[in-house]
Amino acid sequence: MAKINSNYNKLAAGYLFPEISKRVKIFLDKNPGVSVIRLGIGNTTEPLVPGVVSALHSAVDKLADSKTYSGYGDDLATYAIPNFREAIVDYYKRMNVSIENEEVFVSDGAKSDLGNLLSIFSNDSIVAVQDPTYPAYVDASVISGLTGTSNGQQYAKVIYMPCNEKNNFFPEPPKAKADLIFLCSPNNPTGAVASRAQLKAFVEYARKNKAVIIFDAAYNWYVSDSALPKSIYEIEGASECAIEVNSFSKYAGFTGVRLGWSIIPKKLMVDGSEAGKVNSIWNRRQCTLFNGASNIVQAGGLFALSPQGVKENLGLVNYYLENAKIIRRGLEEKGLKVVSGGTNAPYIWVRTPKGMKSWDFFDKILSEANVVVTPGSGFGPSGEGYFRVSAFGHRENVIKAVESIRNKLKL
Amino acid sequence: MAKINSNYNKLAAGYLFPEISKRVKIFLDKNPGVSVIRLGIGNTTEPLVPGVVSALHSAVDKLADSKTYSGYGDDLATYAIPNFREAIVDYYKRMNVSIENEEVFVSDGAKSDLGNLLSIFSNDSIVAVQDPTYPAYVDASVISGLTGTSNGQQYAKVIYMPCNEKNNFFPEPPKAKADLIFLCSPNNPTGAVASRAQLKAFVEYARKNKAVIIFDAAYNWYVSDSALPKSIYEIEGASECAIEVNSFSKYAGFTGVRLGWSIIPKKLMVDGSEAGKVNSIWNRRQCTLFNGASNIVQAGGLFALSPQGVKENLGLVNYYLENAKIIRRGLEEKGLKVVSGGTNAPYIWVRTPKGMKSWDFFDKILSEANVVVTPGSGFGPSGEGYFRVSAFGHRENVIKAVESIRNKLKL
Repeated sequence: MAKINSNYNKLAAGYLFPEISKRVKIFLDKNPGVSVIRLGIGNTTEPLVPGVVSALHSAVDKLADSKTYSGYGDDLATYAIPNFREAIVDYYKRMNVSIENEEVFVSDGAKSDLGNLLSIFSNDSIVAVQDPTYPAYVDASVISGLTGTSNGQQYAKVIYMPCNEKNNFFPEPPKAKADLIFLCSPNNPTGAVASRAQLKAFVEYARKNKAVIIFDAAYNWYVSDSALPKSIYEIEGASECAIEVNSFSKYAGFTGVRLGWSIIPKKLMVDGSEAGKVNSIWNRRQCTLFNGASNIVQAGGLFALSPQGVKENLGLVNYYLENAKIIRRGLEEKGLKVVSGGTNAPYIWVRTPKGMKSWDFFDKILSEANVVVTPGSGFGPSGEGYFRVSAFGHRENVIKAVESIRNKLKL
Repeated sequence: MAKINSNYNKLAAGYLFPEISKRVKIFLDKNPGVSVIRLGIGNTTEPLVPGVVSALHSAVDKLADSKTYSGYGDDLATYAIPNFREAIVDYYKRMNVSIENEEVFVSDGAKSDLGNLLSIFSNDSIVAVQDPTYPAYVDASVISGLTGTSNGQQYAKVIYMPCNEKNNFFPEPPKAKADLIFLCSPNNPTGAVASRAQLKAFVEYARKNKAVIIFDAAYNWYVSDSALPKSIYEIEGASECAIEVNSFSKYAGFTGVRLGWSIIPKKLMVDGSEAGKVNSIWNRRQCTLFNGASNIVQAGGLFALSPQGVKENLGLVNYYLENAKIIRRGLEEKGLKVVSGGTNAPYIWVRTPKGMKSWDFFDKILSEANVVVTPGSGFGPSGEGYFRVSAFGHRENVIKAVESIRNKLKL
């Protein structure tokens, strides 16, 4: 008799973003004729840059010609197209970070890898997360059986590291012993960016406790302040204790196109394993359960990493950063308290007025201003009383949303 | 202290296909100037059909235009582009099989889903596999902790269902009680195709034992004999006990392009769960750990499912089937015993001469004829003494390989 993995029963709620979609749909069904502006999910809206478009077309043409057609990648271990891993290595070199080709694994985006990475570690691992946090880290841990049950707020075995106004939304390493630590900087949802000193403290903690940091750098392209680290590997010793996950989604508008990568350093060591072991086990996992990202898409990504590609895509990044500035200013002028984000990050983290609950404010701003935001409590207990605004959107809609909040939201 | 998932230590060998690549590389390094013909891995070689190429170009152009650009799919549950699920539903309708939109989940290929599906079931599930079998089923089960340890031949907890000359390479349902049963028809590696009666026996077994069949139909496009089933759902009652996984890889040359789908029927029930539960749990898994297949690629797949797309791609399928015929005939003329496959399937399953071990014959045919095949023992204990030849290749190379075997292989 087949049975369901009972860990699924421990999930406290539906996955956050479909839940928001559902509530918006109910609102729209009840209010025919009303249109909403979505600044909830971080979904890119601007077209791919010209160089990426050309690269994608060329890749399609190659597959149309028997002389240049290719199927499964020759390098079954990483499924990367020629020069892709080299381009990632170069990307790190520009940050003075040294990565080897064999440490680069192509993916179809950060989300798949973030969850799948859990499966290469022991099923009694203790997970630590920033609180609030991107919900996939926690949900993937629940499904993997690492969390125990929820009391409606927190899972019993998870170490929550509160990020709040007191610590400027980046935590100190926990007192308790964690095995796997999810860190995200620039942060989703708070938009906070860790300093070198803050990351250094985590690297020291991880090395001391033989823990592994899973560093989600998906928003690092939004860091324009050169004093702030863009990669955990800018911190000495990080290659002994950290995996880094990245994505083209928010950099190159690849949310629907699908491409990312992970770095598993050969130096990374865990309890009882020699150097190279984690790298080779991830390799084995990917050979067995993955066939690589689309070769068409990889060609687009390869261009995006070239000097011209970086130039074009930073235009895209700056467009969303300008949105963030407009939203931040608009909310502040309205008298809302923006507590984090909106510079060096595409998310703005805002206190709800008068101590309202996050979901109550979600309903209020939706019904009064017809703007969709993300309730902070959806990201964890410390997110209660806050909401996230995404800067991904057409400029005209962002301006319209700010206007609507200014004119229609009753504070 | 982070620890490795110890199930990885139970894997008896490296994943089969990288292992073959490695051995071929060693051979080539030792024999400079020699070139080999690869009929080992089932890797497509012929260009995408014109209609798919146009559809891919159009999809790229859409992403280049702010009016038509799209990011994450609106339907977060399935990440399918508009009309994609409907096209799959139509595809089944042509086989007189009734599927609902909500039962269709897009994937980046069959391999990811085959492994990930295990994670939605209990971690004490008993897995049954055909023997020989596509190695990912077993390896994924090992990694998931479902197998126990290997004695070098078999994993302790896995139910092996021998496929041999006696049963014409399709097994009867096992005597023992399995929870999850992997079936593949047309089969990889044997090329055998299950009859309706054979599938019916498994559906009856699964319904009786509340087991789930995970049916891999990735090669079903190669079935030209209308008496043979192309989908498990052609068998009455299968939607209560079977998941079907499919792919565009071998149908439309998408091995590098990456696209597939899975069907999780709402009627599918497992122990202690109501109807719809397995479907909703897979939905939750995909929302949490996946962001869909590339929207560019899906547009290509959507065309491939249209009447004109089917027409063009069946040309591709027939090209590889003609290869299979040439290989089959060539091997038989050489005096080798083809025991299965090569009609209604792109693989040919052959007995090694004089009872040679599979890997010994792999070395022999590589060094004498410079042809790469896949050793049968790599697919499981009952594969020992056989080898698989893949019909995926340029016609000229296939002919060259057959010539080389005819002239150089010493029997």
